[in-house]
Amino acid sequence: MLQQTISSISSLNQDSMAQAQERQAQLTKPAGSLGRLEQLSIQIAGITGQIKPSLAQRAVIVAAGDHGITAEGVSAFPSEVTPQMVFNFLNGGAAINVLARQAGARVVVLDAGVASDLPSHPDLFNCKVAPGTANFAQGPAMSREQAVQAIEAGIAAVEREYAKGLDMVGTGDMGIGNTTPSSAICSTITGASVDEVTGRGTGIDDATRQHKVQVIQRGLEVNNPDSNDALDVLAKVGGFEIGAIAGVILGAAARRLPVLVDGFISTAGALIAAGLAPLSKDYMIAAHRSVEPGHRIMQEYLSLEPIFTLDLRLGEGTGGALAMPVIASAVATLNEMATFAEASVSGKLD
Amino acid sequence: MLQQTISSISSLNQDSMAQAQERQAQLTKPAGSLGRLEQLSIQIAGITGQIKPSLAQRAVIVAAGDHGITAEGVSAFPSEVTPQMVFNFLNGGAAINVLARQAGARVVVLDAGVASDLPSHPDLFNCKVAPGTANFAQGPAMSREQAVQAIEAGIAAVEREYAKGLDMVGTGDMGIGNTTPSSAICSTITGASVDEVTGRGTGIDDATRQHKVQVIQRGLEVNNPDSNDALDVLAKVGGFEIGAIAGVILGAAARRLPVLVDGFISTAGALIAAGLAPLSKDYMIAAHRSVEPGHRIMQEYLSLEPIFTLDLRLGEGTGGALAMPVIASAVATLNEMATFAEASVSGKLD
Repeated sequence: MLQQTISSISSLNQDSMAQAQERQAQLTKPAGSLGRLEQLSIQIAGITGQIKPSLAQRAVIVAAGDHGITAEGVSAFPSEVTPQMVFNFLNGGAAINVLARQAGARVVVLDAGVASDLPSHPDLFNCKVAPGTANFAQGPAMSREQAVQAIEAGIAAVEREYAKGLDMVGTGDMGIGNTTPSSAICSTITGASVDEVTGRGTGIDDATRQHKVQVIQRGLEVNNPDSNDALDVLAKVGGFEIGAIAGVILGAAARRLPVLVDGFISTAGALIAAGLAPLSKDYMIAAHRSVEPGHRIMQEYLSLEPIFTLDLRLGEGTGGALAMPVIASAVATLNEMATFAEASVSGKLD
Repeated sequence: MLQQTISSISSLNQDSMAQAQERQAQLTKPAGSLGRLEQLSIQIAGITGQIKPSLAQRAVIVAAGDHGITAEGVSAFPSEVTPQMVFNFLNGGAAINVLARQAGARVVVLDAGVASDLPSHPDLFNCKVAPGTANFAQGPAMSREQAVQAIEAGIAAVEREYAKGLDMVGTGDMGIGNTTPSSAICSTITGASVDEVTGRGTGIDDATRQHKVQVIQRGLEVNNPDSNDALDVLAKVGGFEIGAIAGVILGAAARRLPVLVDGFISTAGALIAAGLAPLSKDYMIAAHRSVEPGHRIMQEYLSLEPIFTLDLRLGEGTGGALAMPVIASAVATLNEMATFAEASVSGKLD
């Protein structure tokens, strides 16, 4: 399934992009004056193969998982918060629920590896690989087979939502401790130092951050992940929900859907996706730039320019939900604005 | 009317802000993790005096005016585009119409000084001070009385919309040549050099930009505006629509409405408003940071942090319309998220 998905990801549609670009030049505004909105409208044309795609059906897929590395004391919150927050998502009370409602998007939760049993619920997609990863400070977080399973859970979640109707998807994460594997992935793949890419997560102090850096360094020494093998990186120092996010991105790219990549954890998933299928990068839109210092480094590595810098550091897909109306607005300007000819507006002076 | 409006602008409601801040701390997320959204929700509470304000009724007021300074050859487009674009606004074909529709906002146009007769139209508010300003390279752009008139046109526009129902307002501008007076205002009030705050506007080349710098410098020498007297600055080197924008901001602040300040020209209006009524700054929200180099300088002077950096340089209120859903989302998170207690989510570890 993973190989099939990867091989069905193709390049952006150049004809549609050229058409979009040509139309942008005729609209009643100085050339280029809508900045990133113009580029986004052209990217969406390339992704969907359409100048006037519908973006009405929107979903945020929040992948959840637990982390053995929390035994090292790297997080400000206890692991029990992961399932508690899953219930909060299912009850509609979390930030992502509120922001998704504002954005006209549904929220679905993907259990990729929460360390406790969750009840069945129509908005919960049960794809638990295992009840939490192993502590990667002592050995691999998961096996290579489990890494594939986690990614395939994300692909399957996109397929499930696609069957219901899906035009645009956002990635989200929930997993106490998950900035730690994300920093490990970031350091391994981008080559930046662990210290540079390790932040305060949900709110640890200086001493705990120093400890977190040491834990990650130990994990990288113990596991020695191969930076050229994204599956190896995910298996050795990743997380189930991070693998699932990579799968959501690959699944979206295979279905030619724009995918809003949220914050630090989602972008760690994007690094894995891009390692497995470089073409998937063209389907990614960076929603925001998080407070986590490694986020900028990841985005630069992926050549992704964020839409917002709102100092978010919550995850859950919150930045992606906030960005959805901007994407819809970009496409709307391309399609609904009058041209110079239609509106009888004079062009630029020679 | 201007003095009355200024004197009715009061401080933000500290009680409401404290209540909002306290509630933010109880919501199911790490403290501060919604970043700017939290600050915005607290600011809106202070502005409206309510924790759960309605933001349903939204309008973008696009002030239009022409500029005598265009005789100096400072713009890439001819002045006839100003009324042509007003028709485009009234017909719903401009970028601001599309973006306002996406944001659930109505668009109204305020003719503060277009250099041609415009027909009557339900969405056009006729408050023409004069058919275009005088060429400020040769003398004052307008009289002090006209400056007051332009500002009062903006206040009246807010009152007109307020009577129809208004919870949140965005400023917008249309006026070929209006980056030139905006740069002049910016340099005068912030003290930055003309060269530093003068950009390419709708798309002039290097040589024309150099010429534009010289024209502005000449205008400042000829008029010698008093940087401590905002009315003097507006009269000598401003524009009718810029005065009207200052009025929209003052009128909104007097009515305790959040006002989204758009790009370079709108922020020039904000400099005038803040000069007349420093408390009005608390009601301003900077929507975006424009490509115009002086915009950052103005925003820093006003201590305004933009929501987006999307490389916009269109004006019309486009950035403000794009930001409206973000403001609504900020307020929604404050009101619709579950608290730790409600959702039985564990707090931070000690």
